[in-house]
Amino acid sequence: MLRNPTMKDVAHEARVSLKTVSRHVNGETNIDPALADRISAAIVKLGYRRNLSAASLRPGWTSKTIGLVISDLANPYYSTLARAIESVADAAGYLVTIASSEEEGMRHDRLVDRLMEQQVDGLIVVPPRNAGRDWSDVASPIPPLVFLDRPVPFADADAVLADNAGGAREATLALVSAGSRRIAFVGDSPDIYTMRERHAGYAAALAEAGIEADDSLTITTAHTREQAEREVGAVLRDGSADAVIAANNRSTIGALLAFQAAGRRLPLVGFDDFETALLGSPPVSVVSHDIELMGCTAADIVLGRLKGDTSAFTTRVLPTQLILRGSEKPEPA
Amino acid sequence: MLRNPTMKDVAHEARVSLKTVSRHVNGETNIDPALADRISAAIVKLGYRRNLSAASLRPGWTSKTIGLVISDLANPYYSTLARAIESVADAAGYLVTIASSEEEGMRHDRLVDRLMEQQVDGLIVVPPRNAGRDWSDVASPIPPLVFLDRPVPFADADAVLADNAGGAREATLALVSAGSRRIAFVGDSPDIYTMRERHAGYAAALAEAGIEADDSLTITTAHTREQAEREVGAVLRDGSADAVIAANNRSTIGALLAFQAAGRRLPLVGFDDFETALLGSPPVSVVSHDIELMGCTAADIVLGRLKGDTSAFTTRVLPTQLILRGSEKPEPA
Repeated sequence: MLRNPTMKDVAHEARVSLKTVSRHVNGETNIDPALADRISAAIVKLGYRRNLSAASLRPGWTSKTIGLVISDLANPYYSTLARAIESVADAAGYLVTIASSEEEGMRHDRLVDRLMEQQVDGLIVVPPRNAGRDWSDVASPIPPLVFLDRPVPFADADAVLADNAGGAREATLALVSAGSRRIAFVGDSPDIYTMRERHAGYAAALAEAGIEADDSLTITTAHTREQAEREVGAVLRDGSADAVIAANNRSTIGALLAFQAAGRRLPLVGFDDFETALLGSPPVSVVSHDIELMGCTAADIVLGRLKGDTSAFTTRVLPTQLILRGSEKPEPA
Repeated sequence: MLRNPTMKDVAHEARVSLKTVSRHVNGETNIDPALADRISAAIVKLGYRRNLSAASLRPGWTSKTIGLVISDLANPYYSTLARAIESVADAAGYLVTIASSEEEGMRHDRLVDRLMEQQVDGLIVVPPRNAGRDWSDVASPIPPLVFLDRPVPFADADAVLADNAGGAREATLALVSAGSRRIAFVGDSPDIYTMRERHAGYAAALAEAGIEADDSLTITTAHTREQAEREVGAVLRDGSADAVIAANNRSTIGALLAFQAAGRRLPLVGFDDFETALLGSPPVSVVSHDIELMGCTAADIVLGRLKGDTSAFTTRVLPTQLILRGSEKPEPA
C-alpha cells in the first residue's frame, strides 16, 4: 500500500464496521474483545496511524499540547522550569512546545501567535523584559493562560510568582548582620519585574537597618555573566562597596569570576540556586525558590482549567528561602 | 460574534470573494493592494485567526513543527542542544516540541508516536540508554529523522555525533603526561553509546602508554551527581586511583564535590564543559565539543531534508577539544 492506510482500510482488513474501528481507535472500551483483537492486528499489519490533524476537525478535538514561552532555554533557571512543566504535562498526556522570546516583546508576540495557530490547549508564558502588545489586543479565543515568574496587567489569566521582594530583603539583612554597610545591588534591567521587586526588597531592608541608600551602588546593566563580571570587577577595584547582592544566577556567577580574577572577594548573596554553588570557597549563599514547584504549579493550573475549573483567576506567590552557606561573611582578615 | 470568525466572515466584511481572502491568508502577494488592505482590516476587526488544524487537510500542508526527544531537559547539556535546535528552527519558521525520554525506551517510543501523530515535519532524537523498539518496526511514513549524540542501527536517517573515543584518548594521555598511572574512569552505564566510546578511548590511551588496564578502576554506576560523588569519595578513601577521568558533566561535578568533602583532590579531566568550570581551584580541565554546533547541525540537516535534499544519509562526527586548565595535574606536595 503506497498511500497511508485509512480507518476504512483497517475496517476492511479486520472485517468490522468503520464505526467499530473508529470507536476502538478513539479509546472506547465497550467493544467485543474478539473484534478489538482483530482491529489491533489489522492496525499493526497495515501500519495505520491516527492522524490528529484530520481528527482536529471533530468537535471537542484538542491538540493535547501546551505552549510554553520562556526567555532562554539555555539558562538553567528556565530549563528547570520547562522540565517541571513537561513532566506534569506528560503525565496528563500533553506534549509541550517550547519557544524562547529572548526577552523581546515582538518575538514573544509572534511566538504566541504561532502557538495559538497550532491550537495549543493552554499557554504558559514568561512575559519578556521588553513588553510587546497588550494581551487585551490579542484576538480571542485565547486558551487558558498562565503568566510565570512575572505578572502582566491582564485580568483573564492566572499567575505564578515568587516572593522576590521578601527574598531580597532577607538577603540584604543577612549581609547587614554579617557587618556590611555599603551593599552593591548587581542585576539585570529594572524593566524586568523580578529585578524591580528584588531591588525594592533590597531598598526596604536598607531603610529598616537605618542605612542610607546610595544610588551609585545599584547596578542594573548586568544582562550577561560577562557584564556582571566586569561590573563587580569595577566595584572591587574602586572599593565603593563592602558586599554584593547578585540579583540572578548569571550575576552570581559573574561576581564569583570577578572575585577569582582579583584574588579576593566581598561578602556575597546570590539569587537562584545553581548546581555548583556548593563548590565555592566558601560555598555560595543564595536566595532560592523552588523552581520545579513553580513549573508544576503553572502546569497544574492550566490542566485544571482544561478540565473545567472555572474558579476566579488567581496569582500565587511562592515563598523564597535564604540559604546561608558562608559567602555572606567577610573574608577573614 | 460568539463563534470564531471564519474566512467567509472576513470575505463578507471586506466585500471580496472567499477565494481572494484565501489567497491573501495563504501568503499570495499577487492581490490588488486595495483589496489586501480591506482584508487586513477585516481580519483585525473580526479577530480572525487561521486555523492550521483545518488547513492541515490541504495537500502539501505541514505542521511547521520539529519534534525533539532528548534525555532530560533539566541537564544543561541537553538544554543547550535544545536551545540551538530551537534557534535554527525558529529562523526557518518552525516551532519545536520537546520531550524528555528519561533514558527509557518505552517512554521514548511513546513520545515518538505522539510527535508523529501531531504530524511533526521532522524528528531529532537522542536515542535512550535503554533501547526500545527497532526503528524498522515503526510504521512509515517516518518524517526526516536525525539521531543526535548517539547512533542507531537504522539506515534511513542521518546522525550527528561527537568524537567521543578521540576525546577520551586525549584526556587520558594528558593525565598520563602529568604523571598519573592509575586512572579511574567514572561514568554512566556502558549501555550508553557515548560511555562505551569514551571508555574505548580511555582503554586505547592506556594501551598506547603501556599501562595495564585494571578493571576495578572502571566505574560505570555514576548515573547521577550524587552517585558520582559517592564513587569518587570511595576511590579517594581506598587510594586505589591516582587520577580521575569523569565521563560526563554530572560525574565531573560529583568528583569535585567528593574532593571538596575530603579536603584533597586527585588530578581530574571531565567530559563536557560547564558554566562554572572556571571557578574550580584549579579550574577544571575538560574534553568538550561544541554542543551548539551539534544542535545547529542536526536542525540544518532536518530543514535541508524538508527542502528536498535527497542525498545519501550520513553520519557526521564533530571533533572534540581538550581544554587544559590545571586540574589535570597533581596537587603540589
